[in-house]
Amino acid sequence: MVDEEKHCPIIRPTLTLVLVDSEIELVPKKYWSHPAVVVNAKKRKKRPSMVLLDSSLHHSLFKDNDQKNRRGRPDIVHQYLLLSLDSILNAEGRLEIYVHTRNDQLIVIDRSTRLPKNYNRYSGLFEELFHTGTVPTGRDPLIRLIEDMDLPSSLRYIRSKKGGDDRPTRTVLLHPDGEPMNTWELFGKLILNEGIENIICLVGGFSHGDFRSAVEENSDMKLSLPGGTLKVWTVISELLVGFRGIGS
Amino acid sequence: MVDEEKHCPIIRPTLTLVLVDSEIELVPKKYWSHPAVVVNAKKRKKRPSMVLLDSSLHHSLFKDNDQKNRRGRPDIVHQYLLLSLDSILNAEGRLEIYVHTRNDQLIVIDRSTRLPKNYNRYSGLFEELFHTGTVPTGRDPLIRLIEDMDLPSSLRYIRSKKGGDDRPTRTVLLHPDGEPMNTWELFGKLILNEGIENIICLVGGFSHGDFRSAVEENSDMKLSLPGGTLKVWTVISELLVGFRGIGS
Repeated sequence: MVDEEKHCPIIRPTLTLVLVDSEIELVPKKYWSHPAVVVNAKKRKKRPSMVLLDSSLHHSLFKDNDQKNRRGRPDIVHQYLLLSLDSILNAEGRLEIYVHTRNDQLIVIDRSTRLPKNYNRYSGLFEELFHTGTVPTGRDPLIRLIEDMDLPSSLRYIRSKKGGDDRPTRTVLLHPDGEPMNTWELFGKLILNEGIENIICLVGGFSHGDFRSAVEENSDMKLSLPGGTLKVWTVISELLVGFRGIGS
Repeated sequence: MVDEEKHCPIIRPTLTLVLVDSEIELVPKKYWSHPAVVVNAKKRKKRPSMVLLDSSLHHSLFKDNDQKNRRGRPDIVHQYLLLSLDSILNAEGRLEIYVHTRNDQLIVIDRSTRLPKNYNRYSGLFEELFHTGTVPTGRDPLIRLIEDMDLPSSLRYIRSKKGGDDRPTRTVLLHPDGEPMNTWELFGKLILNEGIENIICLVGGFSHGDFRSAVEENSDMKLSLPGGTLKVWTVISELLVGFRGIGS
């Protein structure tokens, strides 16, 4: 008689974070000869084509106010990655971390990545990533960038990586217009009441405006945390710690 | 008959965070002529005396490995302040935020401060703070630096600011050697079981080594979060969200 219990792996709920429409990109070609780009690239001994768009350096590029306020926020991605990678949830092996960008690239982050804490070193690393597609270069890159991945493609990729769709899954959109709820209430409902084992949370990776991707069509529910429009690091903290409070 | 109920303010538990022995300081005088300092200061058009010590720029200053690994981490203070200031707990008016430095300065942060998200802009602001003692300069500074404040003096100041010691208070040290406990368990015990209204948490503001200040003598209990030695932003997230889960 085979002891089935023994061969059955222990299933613990896992959380997948996707930062959606993140405002991270290299300086677009049409701005390569703009003085603000040339001066800053020279200071850093980089070619303009190799530099991340950064609102704190390049705000004069955009005349349109929506663009000026929104584009060039690699710092948001940095904060998101530091918080996620260094979280207790990640140390417990119960977290997956993705970045989807405004230009429909999907960045896949290995959970063992040790990201530079310093912003300028992180920028250098991600400039290499956007140029070569992988960092560190070599056989086993820890961070990979995949092109032509709109949100539906990204979610298909993420679900397939988790062994297909056979585990009960919910995709939750964090949005100021969503149903007001704390994260521990959300996870309590999904994990304890509904037996969901695999929760994917979509969080906007931008500071102004709304999602560009079709987030509503690609999620099962829409949730709003207390306080309305929050910073990305605030939302990520609430998710990481709220999940641990329930899913442990 | 006076309705005493009406005049009695609603008391809700508050959390005070103190980042202790934070590795933030201006470049010490003996290093002002060091090439690594001179070159970087020139690039930023600053005098060497006006520049924050930053391990990512100045690691060649220290021969001693303990010093090299430890000193010059204003990025830790930046992360701590962004997370705290932008937290839901702060928006609810239930958080107080302090930084104590390796040189026994106490930095008092107004809860309405809008800190630069960009690391380089933040560095510029704090260089001004360490030079002038207040930012922004003017009648109502949002951030103030007070000299000659060792940990006991800092805690006396913090308690006096909260209207004296008359509210039931506990000071909790976060330390890898402490009693293993999650933050919601800690706050549940203190707030729900013991009726504590005012909780002060001491978190180390450094990445290597141990506290320099007499933290044990100045705290009531010592707590360790799962996973042992954690990043400052991980501990701060767990405190901010765990407190809200109980104290709301």
